[in-house]
Amino acid sequence: MRVAVVAVGDELLLGAVVNGNLAWTGRTLAAAGLDVVRGYEVDDDVDAIVDVLRDALRVADAVVVTGGLGPTSDDRTRDALAALAGVPLVEDPALLADLDRWFRDRRRVKPPTVDVQARRPRSARALTNAYGTAPGLGLEVDGRVVYAVPGVPLEMRAMLTDVVVPELRGRAGSPAPLLTRQLRVAVVGESLVAHRLQPLEADLPDGVRLAYLASPGEVRVRFTGTDDAALVAARDRARELLGAAVSGEDDETLAATVLAALGVRGETLAVAESLTGGQVVATLVDVPGASQALVAGVVAYATDRKTDLLGVPADLLDREGPVHPDVARAMARGVRDRARADWGLATTGVAGPDQQDGQDPGTVHVAVTSAAGDHVLSLRLVGDRSAVRTVATANALDLLRRAVLGLATDPEHPW
Amino acid sequence: MRVAVVAVGDELLLGAVVNGNLAWTGRTLAAAGLDVVRGYEVDDDVDAIVDVLRDALRVADAVVVTGGLGPTSDDRTRDALAALAGVPLVEDPALLADLDRWFRDRRRVKPPTVDVQARRPRSARALTNAYGTAPGLGLEVDGRVVYAVPGVPLEMRAMLTDVVVPELRGRAGSPAPLLTRQLRVAVVGESLVAHRLQPLEADLPDGVRLAYLASPGEVRVRFTGTDDAALVAARDRARELLGAAVSGEDDETLAATVLAALGVRGETLAVAESLTGGQVVATLVDVPGASQALVAGVVAYATDRKTDLLGVPADLLDREGPVHPDVARAMARGVRDRARADWGLATTGVAGPDQQDGQDPGTVHVAVTSAAGDHVLSLRLVGDRSAVRTVATANALDLLRRAVLGLATDPEHPW
Repeated sequence: MRVAVVAVGDELLLGAVVNGNLAWTGRTLAAAGLDVVRGYEVDDDVDAIVDVLRDALRVADAVVVTGGLGPTSDDRTRDALAALAGVPLVEDPALLADLDRWFRDRRRVKPPTVDVQARRPRSARALTNAYGTAPGLGLEVDGRVVYAVPGVPLEMRAMLTDVVVPELRGRAGSPAPLLTRQLRVAVVGESLVAHRLQPLEADLPDGVRLAYLASPGEVRVRFTGTDDAALVAARDRARELLGAAVSGEDDETLAATVLAALGVRGETLAVAESLTGGQVVATLVDVPGASQALVAGVVAYATDRKTDLLGVPADLLDREGPVHPDVARAMARGVRDRARADWGLATTGVAGPDQQDGQDPGTVHVAVTSAAGDHVLSLRLVGDRSAVRTVATANALDLLRRAVLGLATDPEHPW
Repeated sequence: MRVAVVAVGDELLLGAVVNGNLAWTGRTLAAAGLDVVRGYEVDDDVDAIVDVLRDALRVADAVVVTGGLGPTSDDRTRDALAALAGVPLVEDPALLADLDRWFRDRRRVKPPTVDVQARRPRSARALTNAYGTAPGLGLEVDGRVVYAVPGVPLEMRAMLTDVVVPELRGRAGSPAPLLTRQLRVAVVGESLVAHRLQPLEADLPDGVRLAYLASPGEVRVRFTGTDDAALVAARDRARELLGAAVSGEDDETLAATVLAALGVRGETLAVAESLTGGQVVATLVDVPGASQALVAGVVAYATDRKTDLLGVPADLLDREGPVHPDVARAMARGVRDRARADWGLATTGVAGPDQQDGQDPGTVHVAVTSAAGDHVLSLRLVGDRSAVRTVATANALDLLRRAVLGLATDPEHPW
């Protein structure tokens, strides 16, 4: 079953909104054994939408259209589907009743413009919207099937999951899902990871595809195929080759790994940040249940507050300035003491774009402290302000991971 | 000049990566007076890429291809362009010399696989890559023009800005840029904003288009057209109608507005967070120069640390639990005192997915304090953990904005 995905909306081509619906749809359909072979973005224009749908039906057995089903004058997907199928739009009394009920249940006045959403191409079925007023549409065109779903992510996801994916899987004879297994490697560069995995690449089992997905501070090593045992075997072989550099499996983020390692030990963490400005703590808090281990964070952004809030010695700051390995160490110790935690983690440095206290952007020091002692890492990172902060955050969390797990903490020798 | 944008890569259709390049390209071309009329995503497959390019050349005068120019076996854009143009790939000695120099300058060993990047379709020009080893390509096909640029955002953006956009503008006779002006409204819902702007919508000048772009905690009101004076006039009229609800203009985020308001007053800010877990501070720190006003932040995630780190009275926590308006107020006062700031800002609440201390997810209290007094806001937010934290952050920053600027602070009466 070859599927094309069409996203409708001026805002996508003008770049005001990123088309995140395609990636979600691609993941979801692949996991259901359905193959997304083409993506399209098109304006809110009936002729253009029809033109794209014709091309999509040329290359695919099924088309999923997102967006253009709302109540305003720039929502044109209904009209385009009617034109494509060569049928008129008709007002559906059942849909009209649904709309009336939706507003009545919420004790809201129904704006008259909303009634346009009760119109459907005469040959189309309506699909129930669990979260909004715009119904989806499903229709057959020349023996192929076209689904239109709202562009609002929450509504789109529910309708695809509840209706579209099961129906497409049924039409396709319940194909084997495309499965994904992955390893995550923090901090180490993509080329080094790929080099380390050469023995596996040279001997990859049939039906297993390997890809590298690099983003600032992380490389994901992704295995896809339909045989989960083969994927798990490949992933486990990669784990052997990558050893201590592996920061997580599948959807397990570096932050989740760190929190899990602390959790099984029943230990707690406090964080002190300067250049990362709350990003380390925010990354940890994104993990549900973070409060089991994470007790507190302090962002001491102004230099003299590092003394007030964290007890960094004023004479150290006077002598070395705020960007120094000993300051990172003192921040980690200070936040550990004051928040009564087992572990302290700290970052200081220069995010850029300008020098600070005579230090270049990308100069970063991270420190970890516990009853067992300290680890301090000094880095020279490249990239803009946002990249420096993101990679500094990854380095801080990975240093903590290595320290908690008793692994090597020298990034020059990650294995 | 009608432009189509083609993104090449299995990872886009499998949903492992979101195609953010399209939105950037769309914004950049629109700002240069060039109209992106179609977007495509296609697999790393020569036949599929050629098929998409043919369709793109059918609907557009120029095509920009992103991705597929790297050194690995799944980089197939070079081959597809050669097949499209009906010419062989040739190895370009100048490109080979560039590659050798790139690695020599960086004192790195050149992997032999990289040399494939010196190959180009015989009829294509190479475009210099300022940040990487993969050159871009430019060629004419049937009187239309095709550019291929790397998929790495930094490399793609530089090549489009430096070469592709100026050349396309030249071909198009230097068209008038499509200009954008916008207002940002924090916290207030889209339908309320649209209702308030009805007088403007009824009387919108010719050539000015109005759109609403809603995301959690913010609505952007966007005006596009080619006459900047008309756009500014429409935006200014919208500002009159929206009044105190306007949190920024154009690219000015809510955090930037707050920091600017503090900056002109020479006042400082300290932040204490619970459910938002560092997101308020991280949002502020994203603004360059944030350290002028933001002196410190404390994330007191565990209940008893709210006493240790912020001086929240233990008996208040015992009596009311951590999710209470008075706790938010005490946190704001505590962080203001301890960090010696002019303003204190605090959040407490339940992000979900589970209840906490008998309180439902989405229960949020934010507080602002200064020498002039306190403001406390209690909210019931809907959405998942991430949405609750994002909207809570927006509410906290907007309450601070209103307090600093001396505006109404009751969200039921935002005007």
